[in-house]
Amino acid sequence: MRSVYVLGASMIPFGKYPDRALDNLGRPAAIGAIRDAGIPKSDIDAAYCGTAMGGMLAGQRVLRNIGMTGIPISNVENACSSSAAAFHTAWMAVSGGHHDVALVLGVEKLTKFGGGTLPLEDEDWEVGQGMTMPALYAMRARRYMYERDLTRQQLAEIAVKAKSNGALNPYAQLRKPITVDQVLESRMIADPLRLFDCCPTGDGAAALVICDESTATRLGRRQIRVLASTLSSGHYEAGYRDITVAEISARTARAAYEMAGIGPEDVDVAEVHDAFSIAEVMYYEALGFCDPGDAPKLIDEKATHLGGRLPVNPSGGLLARGHPVGATGAAQLVEMTWQLRGETGDRQVAGAEIGLTHVTGGGISGLDHGACTINILAKVA
Amino acid sequence: MRSVYVLGASMIPFGKYPDRALDNLGRPAAIGAIRDAGIPKSDIDAAYCGTAMGGMLAGQRVLRNIGMTGIPISNVENACSSSAAAFHTAWMAVSGGHHDVALVLGVEKLTKFGGGTLPLEDEDWEVGQGMTMPALYAMRARRYMYERDLTRQQLAEIAVKAKSNGALNPYAQLRKPITVDQVLESRMIADPLRLFDCCPTGDGAAALVICDESTATRLGRRQIRVLASTLSSGHYEAGYRDITVAEISARTARAAYEMAGIGPEDVDVAEVHDAFSIAEVMYYEALGFCDPGDAPKLIDEKATHLGGRLPVNPSGGLLARGHPVGATGAAQLVEMTWQLRGETGDRQVAGAEIGLTHVTGGGISGLDHGACTINILAKVA
Repeated sequence: MRSVYVLGASMIPFGKYPDRALDNLGRPAAIGAIRDAGIPKSDIDAAYCGTAMGGMLAGQRVLRNIGMTGIPISNVENACSSSAAAFHTAWMAVSGGHHDVALVLGVEKLTKFGGGTLPLEDEDWEVGQGMTMPALYAMRARRYMYERDLTRQQLAEIAVKAKSNGALNPYAQLRKPITVDQVLESRMIADPLRLFDCCPTGDGAAALVICDESTATRLGRRQIRVLASTLSSGHYEAGYRDITVAEISARTARAAYEMAGIGPEDVDVAEVHDAFSIAEVMYYEALGFCDPGDAPKLIDEKATHLGGRLPVNPSGGLLARGHPVGATGAAQLVEMTWQLRGETGDRQVAGAEIGLTHVTGGGISGLDHGACTINILAKVA
Repeated sequence: MRSVYVLGASMIPFGKYPDRALDNLGRPAAIGAIRDAGIPKSDIDAAYCGTAMGGMLAGQRVLRNIGMTGIPISNVENACSSSAAAFHTAWMAVSGGHHDVALVLGVEKLTKFGGGTLPLEDEDWEVGQGMTMPALYAMRARRYMYERDLTRQQLAEIAVKAKSNGALNPYAQLRKPITVDQVLESRMIADPLRLFDCCPTGDGAAALVICDESTATRLGRRQIRVLASTLSSGHYEAGYRDITVAEISARTARAAYEMAGIGPEDVDVAEVHDAFSIAEVMYYEALGFCDPGDAPKLIDEKATHLGGRLPVNPSGGLLARGHPVGATGAAQLVEMTWQLRGETGDRQVAGAEIGLTHVTGGGISGLDHGACTINILAKVA
């Protein structure tokens, strides 16, 4: 298997762009990534576009307008994990020797649904009965608070950290710092989760260019290496389950660490799927950033803040950068590339050499996600 | 790059299943392919599901109900080419060494849209002005008839052949033979194309299991090898173009023949994307089955009929087997696997050793398709 490098990364500021068509969201991200890679677009052999609700041929619709035509283009859908899975497919294509240089795109326009609830499949009967994402995570939060002595204040600290980081990120959708009191006073969504515990909906696009080692070497750009790229689906078990445990994330993380030949203690910075404040708490444990039950301690120690021992979501995460579903995974990888290069200004994690991105999406059968994708990048030069 | 083999293939009869959820369409196809492969489902390392309009996590929704959980699952969208592109992705994963055994699924339920026009993206301004698929192919037909002396009767012969073959195929949606007169008397859709010149809409699912050479050898099933798997996107050119030429198909075919190390003269049987009768005419030329302009001669000679020198669409093709968009590519590959194994009964192409499948989908900027996928299979034992 060939080593894979990240050559270029770019994104548009996430937000609400009701007047821009999907292709006009994706285009500047794609152009930015190619420019950042420092190669002509004709050097790109294939493109993989992640979108969950962008409609047919989203990648083609974006790329035709910048003259990237006549190459293999595939669109990858894996709910929230769509563009991370597109990155994984591109990584397979490059590491497996099918292509030398590939473009990865994530693009989503949620404002086309008019805000609020996203369209759902009729056979998703649990959702039909009220098991929406906020309801699901509210139950998990309640149980975690009960089992592990997590306080409502500690939970709010996750949202405060996200918004504080987001305020430093020009690409974030929400850039206003908030206080614990503001979280606790924001309107109730699904008890105990309040508005500021939940990520916003919006639009966005992010893109990366990856390549094989010989191309990276030829270009003098052996800089950011992909140490691991892993994808899994949930087990969708019925019956009793411990809802405070994020099983799919823990399992995918183990596979990622094994592939990378590292442990969680080697991770310097992480972007995790904080769709709700409680989610980040559970992912601390699933990703091995602390022992099971110790997430509240991590919060009290501010270990995951900028300046802490393992900053998590320096971009502001889904809670502040925003969560245009299919674009999120690519945005995490863009942030991580920039972090490892030391290009993130006020939100820079000092000395970051290994970064992990984690995104998991699509609740099926209640607790289990449809797809979890974990990628690990390393600064090698 | 490792050689890849087809181990198993299955599909459900295409048709209209308004009362069955998407997962209930895909499930029997997946189970059938795994049984046909003769392996336990636990041997499958990853799954790739092609769907164009099946909604989020279509593959996961199908596979969770047969206990195929905890493996990498990705959904691939490329309009009509979706499940052929999913096959291509699976082929990359296996040939590149990432997985040994992969399931490919194609599934689509068009009856959920209530029949008639399919949902379109708002930025598809050409469609908004009337440039729908039937309109587009009607223009191509008119021009081809003018340039190449193709008669309306010859065009009808394509539909007659499709329905004649479909009548022999228990998996076809339309199984009633028709006459040239019936085609010419069927109601006008877009002049000169009439109802029987157009494929029906419907629901369907098809699945395959593929594996690397050492797995195939271990199982004693080195039987059907993938000689080539190619994917490309259109050039989406503006201005004057020769609309009688299927450029993307010709270009993708050249790449496929080069990868397979064969020429069109080596193909014994083909499944091509006959969404409209005129399409098959153009693909004869694009795929090199005859010289440009000679398709009418091929029709007169009945060369592409069962028993002819190169039978095309023995399954009945899109015109008779049906065209549940995302399921079509996989269905073509299932038919081809069965043909090369000699398992297709009355519609068997005698002595078929090399088979080509061709699917192209998603009109963008008028003539150019978003994705064309060509796979070439060979009987090796």
